[in-house]
Amino acid sequence: MARILRIIGLETIPDIKPGDDIADLIVKSCIQEGVNIDDGDIIVVAQKIVSKAEKRILDINSLKPSDKAVKLSEFTGKDAKFIEAVLMESKEVVKAVPGHLITITRHGITCANAGIDRSNVSGLENIITLLPVDPDASAENIRRGIEKLTGRKVAVVISDTYGRPLRNGQINVAIGLSGINPFKDYRGIRDLTGYTLHVKNIALADEIASAAELVMGQAQEKIPVAIVKGLEVRIENNHTAKELNMDKEKWLFK
Amino acid sequence: MARILRIIGLETIPDIKPGDDIADLIVKSCIQEGVNIDDGDIIVVAQKIVSKAEKRILDINSLKPSDKAVKLSEFTGKDAKFIEAVLMESKEVVKAVPGHLITITRHGITCANAGIDRSNVSGLENIITLLPVDPDASAENIRRGIEKLTGRKVAVVISDTYGRPLRNGQINVAIGLSGINPFKDYRGIRDLTGYTLHVKNIALADEIASAAELVMGQAQEKIPVAIVKGLEVRIENNHTAKELNMDKEKWLFK
Repeated sequence: MARILRIIGLETIPDIKPGDDIADLIVKSCIQEGVNIDDGDIIVVAQKIVSKAEKRILDINSLKPSDKAVKLSEFTGKDAKFIEAVLMESKEVVKAVPGHLITITRHGITCANAGIDRSNVSGLENIITLLPVDPDASAENIRRGIEKLTGRKVAVVISDTYGRPLRNGQINVAIGLSGINPFKDYRGIRDLTGYTLHVKNIALADEIASAAELVMGQAQEKIPVAIVKGLEVRIENNHTAKELNMDKEKWLFK
Repeated sequence: MARILRIIGLETIPDIKPGDDIADLIVKSCIQEGVNIDDGDIIVVAQKIVSKAEKRILDINSLKPSDKAVKLSEFTGKDAKFIEAVLMESKEVVKAVPGHLITITRHGITCANAGIDRSNVSGLENIITLLPVDPDASAENIRRGIEKLTGRKVAVVISDTYGRPLRNGQINVAIGLSGINPFKDYRGIRDLTGYTLHVKNIALADEIASAAELVMGQAQEKIPVAIVKGLEVRIENNHTAKELNMDKEKWLFK
């Protein structure tokens, strides 16, 4: 009688190399691990492996910091070349304070350091990973690949870690998606007791990304893909994760 | 081989009445639905039913708006009595603009309308539901109750819907907890490839609340309790959801 949602973390995805076909590797891991891909499954993929497959890796020593980057470096205490990379990925600097640089990325995501991950392996501090150029297109590409290989109608969400303005700690959110509406809109729907929930518009795709993080982990566990099964959503292809980005005009906090 | 997390939504929790014993009702529903409660389970409970059981329901017609409430009413366009209730539940007004009133609640949560839910049943617009007085204590109470009835070591998270400053749509977060550390701290931990993830401190309890929302739904579905199984966390009793509230001094956006 109870309703059950299952989130399955794939543990046999190999180290991703530039040019790898992620859809193909997901389907192979599913076969290896005895996991079926079914219609309606939502496949959550960590941004990191998408960026790697799409060759979004950069040596910041190849960059020459602009005057703006140098100034922001002095102000934030961050490396000027790293800031140059952040500026390259951003359309607007929102906040620069010691230790923090918040920008709006070219995709419209407001986050720290334009979502850039910096390696801190000794001797490799110069290597950074950029977000995919178009994470919705990346998601669509993976979705189509899986559909082609399996014949199943699935959705794909690309997830990344996100620091919140008013709450401690980070959660995973959706930065790219295909096959799913990012919202579950209850506005105007009446519940069983006749209440009308006219305010709630749940950011479903972000909740899916957070739920997947619970099995994907972050450090030693190395599970870059999770499959969400049992969520009753309609697979539909006319949405993007950009819908989750709040327009600056609507920000209450500036 | 794949790692599996299961989230089970209980569908037979009855309508909660003031004074109800939620732990008892959860255990009864589990028996009725054939769901085992196991050591390490995380039981997510919707704030709404906790508030009801704790008689945190108020008729705003019993309130006399203060001058401050009247002024904020004129400015925000919200009902003065409703604002009086919000002020009563808050220690600080953070932002008042037309259509929005953001405060810091007495618990330290920064959110809209002090987390107050307003009925919009015709003729009952005056009835509101306040957050529990001490949601961590509520969670502890439910946890102890379940432990007593089942002999299992579990964690309890009380979840509520939360609007984000920079992203569209709402997600569920943890406003109370017992038996679980709200964070999964990866700072300083090396992954398999030798990287050190020195920044990430995942807000695990918020992700659990979001994951549970996926089965709990919001409107017609009426699933106020979900059980998360398969998450490898240690049950520990010295934490609170207050740790998730960022101190105002640390806010980048003000």
